[in-house]
Amino acid sequence: MANSPKFTFSLLISIIVLYFSTATLSSPPVRRSKHAPRFLGKFSRASNITGRPGPNVVGAPRYRYETRYFDQNLDHFSFSDLPKFRQRYLINTEYWAGPNLGPIFFYCGNEGDIEWFAANTGFVWELAPRFGAMIIFPEHRYYGESMPYGSQEVAYKNASTLAHLTAEQALADFAVLITELKRNLSAQACPVVLFGGSYGGMLAAWMRLKYPHIAIGALVSSAPVLQFEDVVPPETFYDIVSNDFRRESISCFNTIKESWDVIESEGQKTNGLSHLTETFRFCRKLESADDLSNWLSSAYSYLAMGDYPYPADFLMPMPGNPIKEVCRKIDNSPEGSSILERIFEGVSIYYNYTGTVDCFDLDDDPHGMNGWNWQACTEMVMPFASSKNTSMFPAYEYDETSDAEWCLESYHVKPRPTWITTEFGGHGFKNALKKFGSNIIFSNGLLDPWSGGSVLEDISETIVALVTEKGAHHLDLRPATADDPDWLLEQRAAEVELIQGWLDQYYGQNKAVFDM
Amino acid sequence: MANSPKFTFSLLISIIVLYFSTATLSSPPVRRSKHAPRFLGKFSRASNITGRPGPNVVGAPRYRYETRYFDQNLDHFSFSDLPKFRQRYLINTEYWAGPNLGPIFFYCGNEGDIEWFAANTGFVWELAPRFGAMIIFPEHRYYGESMPYGSQEVAYKNASTLAHLTAEQALADFAVLITELKRNLSAQACPVVLFGGSYGGMLAAWMRLKYPHIAIGALVSSAPVLQFEDVVPPETFYDIVSNDFRRESISCFNTIKESWDVIESEGQKTNGLSHLTETFRFCRKLESADDLSNWLSSAYSYLAMGDYPYPADFLMPMPGNPIKEVCRKIDNSPEGSSILERIFEGVSIYYNYTGTVDCFDLDDDPHGMNGWNWQACTEMVMPFASSKNTSMFPAYEYDETSDAEWCLESYHVKPRPTWITTEFGGHGFKNALKKFGSNIIFSNGLLDPWSGGSVLEDISETIVALVTEKGAHHLDLRPATADDPDWLLEQRAAEVELIQGWLDQYYGQNKAVFDM
Repeated sequence: MANSPKFTFSLLISIIVLYFSTATLSSPPVRRSKHAPRFLGKFSRASNITGRPGPNVVGAPRYRYETRYFDQNLDHFSFSDLPKFRQRYLINTEYWAGPNLGPIFFYCGNEGDIEWFAANTGFVWELAPRFGAMIIFPEHRYYGESMPYGSQEVAYKNASTLAHLTAEQALADFAVLITELKRNLSAQACPVVLFGGSYGGMLAAWMRLKYPHIAIGALVSSAPVLQFEDVVPPETFYDIVSNDFRRESISCFNTIKESWDVIESEGQKTNGLSHLTETFRFCRKLESADDLSNWLSSAYSYLAMGDYPYPADFLMPMPGNPIKEVCRKIDNSPEGSSILERIFEGVSIYYNYTGTVDCFDLDDDPHGMNGWNWQACTEMVMPFASSKNTSMFPAYEYDETSDAEWCLESYHVKPRPTWITTEFGGHGFKNALKKFGSNIIFSNGLLDPWSGGSVLEDISETIVALVTEKGAHHLDLRPATADDPDWLLEQRAAEVELIQGWLDQYYGQNKAVFDM
Repeated sequence: MANSPKFTFSLLISIIVLYFSTATLSSPPVRRSKHAPRFLGKFSRASNITGRPGPNVVGAPRYRYETRYFDQNLDHFSFSDLPKFRQRYLINTEYWAGPNLGPIFFYCGNEGDIEWFAANTGFVWELAPRFGAMIIFPEHRYYGESMPYGSQEVAYKNASTLAHLTAEQALADFAVLITELKRNLSAQACPVVLFGGSYGGMLAAWMRLKYPHIAIGALVSSAPVLQFEDVVPPETFYDIVSNDFRRESISCFNTIKESWDVIESEGQKTNGLSHLTETFRFCRKLESADDLSNWLSSAYSYLAMGDYPYPADFLMPMPGNPIKEVCRKIDNSPEGSSILERIFEGVSIYYNYTGTVDCFDLDDDPHGMNGWNWQACTEMVMPFASSKNTSMFPAYEYDETSDAEWCLESYHVKPRPTWITTEFGGHGFKNALKKFGSNIIFSNGLLDPWSGGSVLEDISETIVALVTEKGAHHLDLRPATADDPDWLLEQRAAEVELIQGWLDQYYGQNKAVFDM
């Protein structure tokens, strides 16, 4: 499959496109501060781009689909007199074997424009023909075109208009959409298979728990469903990023780890900020050394998420195994280079791989309303910390109070840090899955810092973990390329076999009409 | 157990108290009309009485508990800036074996004052000591003292304040309350067993599906979880009521069936309404023959729900096997009695068994805001119809449009008739339970008209139906009495054995801390 010419898309394209995919869990867990949302702001802008990939993503896979809209209740769980909103969804029925035979492949839309997720989830498109499947990509409410109150401007105006941007409402949107579509297509008997990556993967997994009557199974890729409260240690994310660097080069790891103090002390010197601005080629003078540290932290985190075995493309293109390249730069800078100069050489792999950037901008809209930030300030409260001993990042402890203050200040909303675990399960999540769940694939790559908050071992016969040592953030969902390594091909083959098994079982044993 | 002196409560008391229990699903499915909510209004007043049973229920079992309050989010699934509300709950820990051993028996509060449910759910209180269980009776939001916005007056003001009276919010209240209580008591490892009757039983069953990590099992008594859309025929309810009468006497059934036309034609005569008013001894003149028909229909439905084998007490006391008594009156009226006189003699068993009522009042507040009516007008949309062939009631078809108009007029809200089946499963409910559920007892008595919408057969090894041929509406949950027949004792014994099995399995196999 991977070697089919159909899937040898231009490298450039698959790379550019990859940016949007890896941006799906776009909350790099830097310390909450006035600058914390900076990268989210930037990424959310990107993910809110409307329409197909533009002229600068020439050759992007242009999957065929119809764009349709469905009127959803803004609040499924209460009956306030609120306006409905138009949920966008993409649908393709050309491979569909029809209401008696064809399954429905349903991608749980993430926090961004659904066309980007469709373009970046090639696996679903490549799978559909061999399964005779209908393909549906619904957009997540409050993202892309699926804006309540008619426009993003109004929807993102304040806490009151943002109130209904929650995972539970999104799951209910999916449940209602599936039910109504099946009814309209007389496809009530068709099994639904869910797909999702990152936050979309979390939605797919939760959907299996909350709506077992709606879908028969889920491929859940790189979904940190356990990254809440104290279910996993808060240091996990940064430890994995750090290990990704350490495995390439201990000296690289050490250089980065030493750099923070150097940056901080430089920032305190007279003209220190000017010196830092110059060394890191910022277009405008840094206002604080922290801004630089956050800028670097984000780069390292995204490098880890996107540490793919082949060249890929964020906003700035990156080579294959980008962390290896970063460390090569850091370790092999010209003799006499300062530690800061070496760091700059390294992160230039992330921020300026093409060498075309003259100077760098920090985020220009740190306080812009941002969907994921809202979600992180309400229910998606993921604790992060950085360990003095094991992390290469500046050490800090998780500070729930300070985060809550930031949210109150920024969004006038109070986080509910124990809600997700109450609603979906925390320490008992795996236990609940074992007893009540079935047909879930948790796929993860261990280089991905989000893997630490996911499910990495088989939970039951039908809830299985597919873990690749060298994979990063939901690589398996991406379009096949000629550069896919064997372990990735094997992972995808295992996924196909499991999905086939769910469908065989469904068609074989469950001859009664499946509900809805 | 049933013969223990401890449980030989005064007959009168257990009977009075029974009224409130049978009122839990207080929506007799009479045709939606301006008079339809009449009995709901009456019953909701009763179920909103605050405090312990008053002086007229002397000898009612006075279970010991503390009354506590918990601040709940009014909206668990969105983040509007709404005031929290105080949820009342009753708690007893005197039998509790402590955080390492003792289970928690959690009654899912219905649509009424929780103290009444506590007083009428003797089974839970009688079970707790032998299981070393803590007992918790949480009140359902918008009922009893658990009023959002500080008072019933404000909470019931309009569709906007009533908006958050939904089953999903109530389930989330329960989940949050259990989680927080366990945390505060360091009782995270304690297994929770759910109990519920009627609508509370539906909540308990749904809780097993939606929050499998919160509780290990549920005793679900007389819960019509399938009474939605077309999952069961809409005629089921009235057919069962009718059969309850037919099994006692075919002539009684026929007399009632013939009476509607007589009433209608009488109502159309000059002075006909006066004559009907006189015959049925109403205090004020009837405004329409329909009012009389609804009054009679309600009596027949409540007689069927409360068709218990021993004397019981609604607002007016009733004998044991009350339908038998009604039919005896109808069939054996003095020679020369008209059909209407015979009907009057019959329903007097329901409305005037003590013979102390001089004249009858129709409901005095047919348009009063009523919690259950709101729920029925939003998501608890249960279709009812009356079959020309099999029912003794006037024939009519389910009219979704007319119901919706009534709701819009009365509550300014539009029903969502397909929501409950989407959220919890409809035709596929049993299938989902079979695949994903466990540890549920669906108990039903076949005389109960709500049994037609419940689960009457075993679904899996651990999801079992306990059906009694002669039982009525959630009799098994009531306090034991000396008059309990053997089949009731057997039903309860089977329930105890199953619950013991869940706990044995939990303690035996699940040594890890159960989540939350």
